[in-house]
Amino acid sequence: MQGKFIVIEGLEGAGKSTAMQTVVDTLKSLGVSDIVFTREPGGTPLAEKLRHLIKHETEEPVTDKAELLMLYAARIQLVENVIKPALAAGKIVLGDRHDMSSQAYQGGGRQFDQTLMANLKNMVLGDFEPDFVLYLDIDPAEGLARARGRGELDRIEQQGLDFFHRTRQRYLELVQNNPKAAIINAGQPLAQVQADIQIAVKNWWMSQAK
Amino acid sequence: MQGKFIVIEGLEGAGKSTAMQTVVDTLKSLGVSDIVFTREPGGTPLAEKLRHLIKHETEEPVTDKAELLMLYAARIQLVENVIKPALAAGKIVLGDRHDMSSQAYQGGGRQFDQTLMANLKNMVLGDFEPDFVLYLDIDPAEGLARARGRGELDRIEQQGLDFFHRTRQRYLELVQNNPKAAIINAGQPLAQVQADIQIAVKNWWMSQAK
Repeated sequence: MQGKFIVIEGLEGAGKSTAMQTVVDTLKSLGVSDIVFTREPGGTPLAEKLRHLIKHETEEPVTDKAELLMLYAARIQLVENVIKPALAAGKIVLGDRHDMSSQAYQGGGRQFDQTLMANLKNMVLGDFEPDFVLYLDIDPAEGLARARGRGELDRIEQQGLDFFHRTRQRYLELVQNNPKAAIINAGQPLAQVQADIQIAVKNWWMSQAK
Repeated sequence: MQGKFIVIEGLEGAGKSTAMQTVVDTLKSLGVSDIVFTREPGGTPLAEKLRHLIKHETEEPVTDKAELLMLYAARIQLVENVIKPALAAGKIVLGDRHDMSSQAYQGGGRQFDQTLMANLKNMVLGDFEPDFVLYLDIDPAEGLARARGRGELDRIEQQGLDFFHRTRQRYLELVQNNPKAAIINAGQPLAQVQADIQIAVKNWWMSQAK
C-alpha cells in the first residue's frame, strides 16, 4: 500500500520541532511506527549542501531567483531520491517543511509572481503533493522573538517583520478551505497546541482509513 | 556606452579555450583591451560552488531537473552580480558558455521539453541575451576524443555519444539563421579555425560600429 506524506509548516518559532514530536507520538498511538523524517531544504547529501548555500552564503548577494531555484533543486532531489521511494514502500513520511514553504516565503515574502510560482512548481513537481499539511499559525513578532531566543538567525530569518507578515498571509490563503490542511493556533499554551495537533492528526488519519 | 556580451559555445573538445585566446587577440587588434572573462556554470563564489555540485556530485544520483535548476541558479548569480554590472560600465564580457549550453545540453541532450526550457529561460533571464555567439561546431566523437586526451571527464561529459549528437543538433538549430551567431567549423586545422574566428569577430564588430 502507498504510504502517506505528512508535512509540518509554519513560520520560524511556530514550534515545528515540538509539533513533530507530538505528531510522532500520535501516529504511534494509532499503530504507526515506521516513519521516515525529512526536512527542507535538505534531506539528501546534495540537498543538504544546497541548504547550506541557501541559508549561509556570505561571499556575495544571493539573488531571489537563485534562492528559489536552489530550493527547488533541493526539493526535487529529496522527492525523487527519498520521499517517493519511501511512499512506494508504504511508509509514512513526516516532513519539516515542503513546497508550501516556498509558496509562502518566496511567493508571499519575496513577492514572486503567483503565476511564476505555480509554473515552477508544476514544472518541477508535477502533481506530487503532501497527503496532509499541519500549519502552525503564529504572529510573526512572537515567532521571531522565540527564534531569536534560540540563537543566531540565518540569512532568510534576518528579513524584516513585513516579510514574515506577507509570508503568514500567503500561508493562511493556502491552508484556508484546503481539505488536505489543518490550521493549529500555535500561540496557545503548549498543552493546548499539543492537544489540537493530536485531534487534527487523528481526524485526518480516520478520514484516510475510510 | 553599454558594453557587449560575447559568448563562445560548443561541445567538449571543440576548442573553446583556444578560441577564447583568438577572440581576445582579435579584440585587442580592434582596440579593445578591457575584457571581463566569465565561465558557466560558475564565475561567482556561489556559482562556482554550484558548478562543483553540478559536475562532481558523487554521493547520490543528480536528477536532470536538479541539474537544470542549479545551472540556472548559477547563471542568474553571474548575470546579476557580474555580467550586467560590467556591461553597464561599458566593458566587453567574454563568456565561456552561457544559456545556449543549457538549451543544447539539457534541452537537446537530456531532451527536456522545449516549452519548459523556454519558460524557464524567460522566468530567470527575461530578455537578457548575448550580443554575439561564436559556436564552434565539431563532430561529437572527435570532440570527445580530444577531451578524453586532456584527462578525466566530469559527470556530464560521461554521457553516451547519442547525448552529444542530440546536443550538437540543438546547437545547430539555435545558431542557423541566427543573426547574432556565427558557426565556426572547428574540425579544420587550427590555423584555419583561428582565421575563421578572426573574420567572424571582425565582421560582427564592424556591424556593431555602424
